[in-house]
Amino acid sequence: MSGEKVYNFSAGPSVLPESALLKAQAELLDYKSSGMSIMEMSHRSLYFKAVFDESKAKLKAALKVPDTHEILFLQGGATLQFAAIPMNLMVSGEASYAVTGNFASLAAKEAEKYGKVHIACDTSDRNHSYIPSPEELSVSEGSDYFYYCANNTIYGTEWHYVPETGKTLVCDMSSDILSKPVDVSKFGLIYAGAQKNMAPAGLTVVIIDKSLAGKAMPITPKVMDYKVLIEKDSMLNTPPCWCIYMLGNTLDWVESVGGVEEIEKLNLEKAKLLYGFLDESKLFVPHAETASRSMMNVTFRTGSQELDGEFVKAAEQRGMLNLKGHRIAGGMRASIYNAMPIEGVKALVDYMKEFEVTHNV
Amino acid sequence: MSGEKVYNFSAGPSVLPESALLKAQAELLDYKSSGMSIMEMSHRSLYFKAVFDESKAKLKAALKVPDTHEILFLQGGATLQFAAIPMNLMVSGEASYAVTGNFASLAAKEAEKYGKVHIACDTSDRNHSYIPSPEELSVSEGSDYFYYCANNTIYGTEWHYVPETGKTLVCDMSSDILSKPVDVSKFGLIYAGAQKNMAPAGLTVVIIDKSLAGKAMPITPKVMDYKVLIEKDSMLNTPPCWCIYMLGNTLDWVESVGGVEEIEKLNLEKAKLLYGFLDESKLFVPHAETASRSMMNVTFRTGSQELDGEFVKAAEQRGMLNLKGHRIAGGMRASIYNAMPIEGVKALVDYMKEFEVTHNV
Repeated sequence: MSGEKVYNFSAGPSVLPESALLKAQAELLDYKSSGMSIMEMSHRSLYFKAVFDESKAKLKAALKVPDTHEILFLQGGATLQFAAIPMNLMVSGEASYAVTGNFASLAAKEAEKYGKVHIACDTSDRNHSYIPSPEELSVSEGSDYFYYCANNTIYGTEWHYVPETGKTLVCDMSSDILSKPVDVSKFGLIYAGAQKNMAPAGLTVVIIDKSLAGKAMPITPKVMDYKVLIEKDSMLNTPPCWCIYMLGNTLDWVESVGGVEEIEKLNLEKAKLLYGFLDESKLFVPHAETASRSMMNVTFRTGSQELDGEFVKAAEQRGMLNLKGHRIAGGMRASIYNAMPIEGVKALVDYMKEFEVTHNV
Repeated sequence: MSGEKVYNFSAGPSVLPESALLKAQAELLDYKSSGMSIMEMSHRSLYFKAVFDESKAKLKAALKVPDTHEILFLQGGATLQFAAIPMNLMVSGEASYAVTGNFASLAAKEAEKYGKVHIACDTSDRNHSYIPSPEELSVSEGSDYFYYCANNTIYGTEWHYVPETGKTLVCDMSSDILSKPVDVSKFGLIYAGAQKNMAPAGLTVVIIDKSLAGKAMPITPKVMDYKVLIEKDSMLNTPPCWCIYMLGNTLDWVESVGGVEEIEKLNLEKAKLLYGFLDESKLFVPHAETASRSMMNVTFRTGSQELDGEFVKAAEQRGMLNLKGHRIAGGMRASIYNAMPIEGVKALVDYMKEFEVTHNV
């Protein structure tokens, strides 16, 4: 590419707002005339404490997080939360899990170590191409919580409603957080790996109803005990400072665009453009069922593995990168997170049209 | 400071090599003409995989890690390892811990959740100002391992010998890794938070004898199971990519200086300069006993809290930052990690001399 404009459709870690990167670059060696990089500062320094507090306040504002909930900046990704959630919340020893994709399935499997897991639904019957309707969800009476993954990155499906199960709601929002407004008050716990819509990999955001903390199993590692983490304001140990700083930069960009409400409009526009073309296409077939389509990850294929490979390779030569689907799902995947400009989607659709023509469709 | 030259004596996160920061800044928006930031790339991309492999190879070379051992790039810091170590290695249910400071004490306390902890020594009798001799260590016969913290950041003490206890050796090297050569083959497990001598906060390096993995307790979270992490080459989930990239940059600098052997000479020179002055000083008193002094964290005080405060404040105005001691220990602490140039130590000693004169000592 040698510095040419590219569009990065990576599923995660993924494209970040250019303004966030430019700010980071400009002040990398000398943060606010301190003579130090933000990377070189104690997490207890006044400089970093301000960064931490501001990132938290900006996220609170962007998602309208109510005062009943606490925002935590942690490490370990979704995989750590898979264990932390049952260890903290499976108080009576049972929970219901909606298995709508790979990550939800892994979460359910990990939870089995710590209690009884009731499978509320399993969409593998149609290759995880859909999200169940409320009527299709079976939630066990004894469940301490109901767990689901809001957006299934690999399959390109997304929940377009918040399930009302009468149980504490626990949600993995790793790949659609900040992509649209969400009523946080409905949730007991939301978590998200930062590496899609928020920051570089290495930060996990947890938003937890404070009343749920304090009931961790005795075997819970201290670093996973939400009560301790709330009390220590995420500083039980050194947090991933750089990622927290970058999150602040990303949130400045979100605000500059007009906030999460405006971001949603832009995301809808991008998704409509791409799905609109897919619905018309004689060559490309979308994977997700229409009502369950993700606004963040658009999965599709030609039906021929060879053609898929050719498409991905040729797109790359034109600066449209990382369109290969996940190895589990195959085909193509265009991840069009917040920071993907509509020009990128237009370029992709234009190229798909051209590809159709050159392949006599 | 407004861009003036400063010396950053922070105990962690702490000063990084300027060349590592400059490289990061130069390629922040466009890594190797990819058109993408390294922060925006999939951890499974060829670009990042090369960064990962190179950082690992450079660390293996710098520390001469034998093939019996595996290097892991993880998250969660020392605090996560406090739990992971007993969960994986306390096979018969007992371990001995040397309590020579705050972090060792926290590690021992966390291990009690998972088995019987035998305290091999406790140096709190003399305010953690010393490291016990081999004869002072009591290791219980049934111990699966012996645990110690090589360098006690808060108190400024450091083990100057590798304990031969006949048990698997587990060591927290967070604050002196890469500061001097180490015979890795003697250790069952070494771990280190990256934020002192390696990279920004958010990365934990584990070096483990592969034969020790595979015996984790059933309650062990998957993200803490060393066997799984070895099998997945640290990519069970998305690793802290930026920190791994920065580690590579730091290791390039280590190599350019002449490797860990040369780094040790420079560190010795810096430490001698500062301790040499402290031994002569009529005002400043070192905290650590002579034989137990840390080459990384030099702790001292005037004996008057007021004078300590005045010294720290005035030093800051002269660009010598973060000299205040940890709140537990009080006094002053100069952390002189690998990336602190000798000029910084000279400037500090000069100022200490001046401070003595102006205070009529």
